[in-house]
Amino acid sequence: MLKFTSHYKSTQSSQSIMDNALATIKEERDSKKVGYYNLPKDSQLELAKVKDINLEGITQVVIIGIGGSSLGIKAIESILNPYTADAKEMLFMENSDPITILETLSKIRKEEACFFMISKSGSTIEATSIFKTLIAHLDLDLDGADKKRVFAITDKGSVLSDFAQHHKLQEFTIPDNVGGRFSVLTAVGVIPLAVAGYDMEKLLLGAEEFVENFFDGKENHLLQKAVYLYDNASSQSINVLFSYADRLEDLTKWYVQLWGESLGKIDKNKNNVGLTPIGLTGAVDQHSFLQLIIEGPRDKNVTFITIEDFQKELVIPDITLKGIEKTNFINNKSFNTLINAQAEATLQSVVESDIDADAITLDKVTPENIGALVIYYEILTSLVGALFEVNTYDQPGVELGKVILYKNLEN
Amino acid sequence: MLKFTSHYKSTQSSQSIMDNALATIKEERDSKKVGYYNLPKDSQLELAKVKDINLEGITQVVIIGIGGSSLGIKAIESILNPYTADAKEMLFMENSDPITILETLSKIRKEEACFFMISKSGSTIEATSIFKTLIAHLDLDLDGADKKRVFAITDKGSVLSDFAQHHKLQEFTIPDNVGGRFSVLTAVGVIPLAVAGYDMEKLLLGAEEFVENFFDGKENHLLQKAVYLYDNASSQSINVLFSYADRLEDLTKWYVQLWGESLGKIDKNKNNVGLTPIGLTGAVDQHSFLQLIIEGPRDKNVTFITIEDFQKELVIPDITLKGIEKTNFINNKSFNTLINAQAEATLQSVVESDIDADAITLDKVTPENIGALVIYYEILTSLVGALFEVNTYDQPGVELGKVILYKNLEN
Repeated sequence: MLKFTSHYKSTQSSQSIMDNALATIKEERDSKKVGYYNLPKDSQLELAKVKDINLEGITQVVIIGIGGSSLGIKAIESILNPYTADAKEMLFMENSDPITILETLSKIRKEEACFFMISKSGSTIEATSIFKTLIAHLDLDLDGADKKRVFAITDKGSVLSDFAQHHKLQEFTIPDNVGGRFSVLTAVGVIPLAVAGYDMEKLLLGAEEFVENFFDGKENHLLQKAVYLYDNASSQSINVLFSYADRLEDLTKWYVQLWGESLGKIDKNKNNVGLTPIGLTGAVDQHSFLQLIIEGPRDKNVTFITIEDFQKELVIPDITLKGIEKTNFINNKSFNTLINAQAEATLQSVVESDIDADAITLDKVTPENIGALVIYYEILTSLVGALFEVNTYDQPGVELGKVILYKNLEN
Repeated sequence: MLKFTSHYKSTQSSQSIMDNALATIKEERDSKKVGYYNLPKDSQLELAKVKDINLEGITQVVIIGIGGSSLGIKAIESILNPYTADAKEMLFMENSDPITILETLSKIRKEEACFFMISKSGSTIEATSIFKTLIAHLDLDLDGADKKRVFAITDKGSVLSDFAQHHKLQEFTIPDNVGGRFSVLTAVGVIPLAVAGYDMEKLLLGAEEFVENFFDGKENHLLQKAVYLYDNASSQSINVLFSYADRLEDLTKWYVQLWGESLGKIDKNKNNVGLTPIGLTGAVDQHSFLQLIIEGPRDKNVTFITIEDFQKELVIPDITLKGIEKTNFINNKSFNTLINAQAEATLQSVVESDIDADAITLDKVTPENIGALVIYYEILTSLVGALFEVNTYDQPGVELGKVILYKNLEN
């Protein structure tokens, strides 16, 4: 269960603005221009295909992908791992950094590994270069013994799809109407995570329940939050996501892509609009970024994420450190209590400093809760994009760099 | 060697403003109000003490510390590790997250481990709670056999210093005139990293050369950059550090603390001032945050960090992927070439989009270069703090949260 608490100063959200934003995304959903709203249902069918994959002897799942083809998978793996018995090891090959690629190569046990080559366009330069490196260094025989361990996840008709068909590799399709950064509930996330042992059926069910409740009018706080963020965009241009669990760090990175890339756009009046996302981890970043939030420019609001029950007991022992007796007040309490008390105290200090904040509390870490959290942020992004009147689903700004790269390297 | 390149639009930095900022930090240095300027020299003496530590059988170095007591150590370990033969494993116990603490506990081999308890005040709640947990779970005998493997690094006269003296543990002192986030070149960083096998002598020499050159007027670009960032603070309130190497991610986190916590302040006119730091990793974040930089609000400037020669060869094999022939242009080139071409193309695309940028290029990863880079950012922070006329070295904004925490938990 997710609990949502708002500490926003009272605002005059116009009902008609909320109605318009909701109407826009309902139209996106009903016209099927935007496909992610229906993924929680649709992807259950995709998930059924995992049964047919031969996992005998497989202990490693290698993901070759970057951006929308890796961030969501990492986010879900990271947070669910401690709660998933017998999960397979996942290795992520994302960046064009030679040090990292060499390190990961040295960890792969070819005969125990399966490989997911994930690219929406099919020709992402990092993924294809890494894939070539794997073929050469592991001596992968794509037409023989290794065919069964290599999978492609890509758009229908992409060059990677052509490649998969040429070698008769099993392929999974990303729906045309789902963009890369909204694709974690397509085959992109569902298939490799299920292969690795994560309960994606429950995760999809959690997402489905949330999205249905939202469109049934039962999660209207989300609409109010979207309008609030939009209304205050000029004075609060930075949205801080402060997650109180180390293993939520990858989820904040996924959020940063979703938020930054979806909303940072030139709008129809040729204005540069958007909101800047910043991901923090508590309590660590109380010792880093918090000072700036409290005393720096008033251009930020903060969303706290906490986990009520980590379900792993670890009590601070009743030990007195001679000279440091003043820390004894925490003895016999659990770290679970400490980290949540730190989150609560930080939230209070932010609110008392007259900075807007809200909070999302997971009662515990379950696939259902993570599924709900994922689609919560996707819907929020779509609503704010509708309010900004931008195209939430494209990323024209990154093309120039690609053109320059090809030009510079081809010469 | 570090190379600095600026793509700032021409600016009218007043010579008198630059002179004033320089005078301010010279005065900080000469009066010894601020101690970090002299650390590259002073810490060589500290470093000599490592010879006397008995490292027989030690293969793990456990750091108990958070914020300024861990970020700098992690940053240096992460980037130098692939270039340091026989480095000992370092384990960081920072956060009050029970999942992470349990995982790290399971990795510690008590008889092969040494422990550095690092806290400037001596009573940091995360560090003391974790330290109690280590004592209980590993059955550490601080008055007997385990005395030799436990070290304290703290302020002179702190409660942790009292504790160390009570148990006759070896302790190292953080100079009074060096704040936590500026302390990586004190015993805080120097001792544990040297114990773990990193060449801190060379790192200090690199820092020393840079700081001397700066005060000799040979690195004036730094002064110009500080004034530029200050002059444009209202329109460019966000400074993005875009590092093109996975292993520089921890250095960007160290920078985020240094920049955010030093500059985010209430100034003498009671205004909330500061600049917001954001750390990115290339090429990964080209697929995430870059869209927002290029098309979003024009409130950002960008600093690129690249490594010319990674000194680890990995060539993209000359393999044609049937259907994906258009990526063949990269075949036979190295990943080193690819990632730097991506950095260069992204820099060009940012500059062509009329966004201010500069670049720092390391010819390769050496302790000297990393030492220079660390002190470069510390000096830049002090200069900008001087221009804002804030106290760069305190963090009053985080106290309120601590007060609330104690109040909430003691009841």
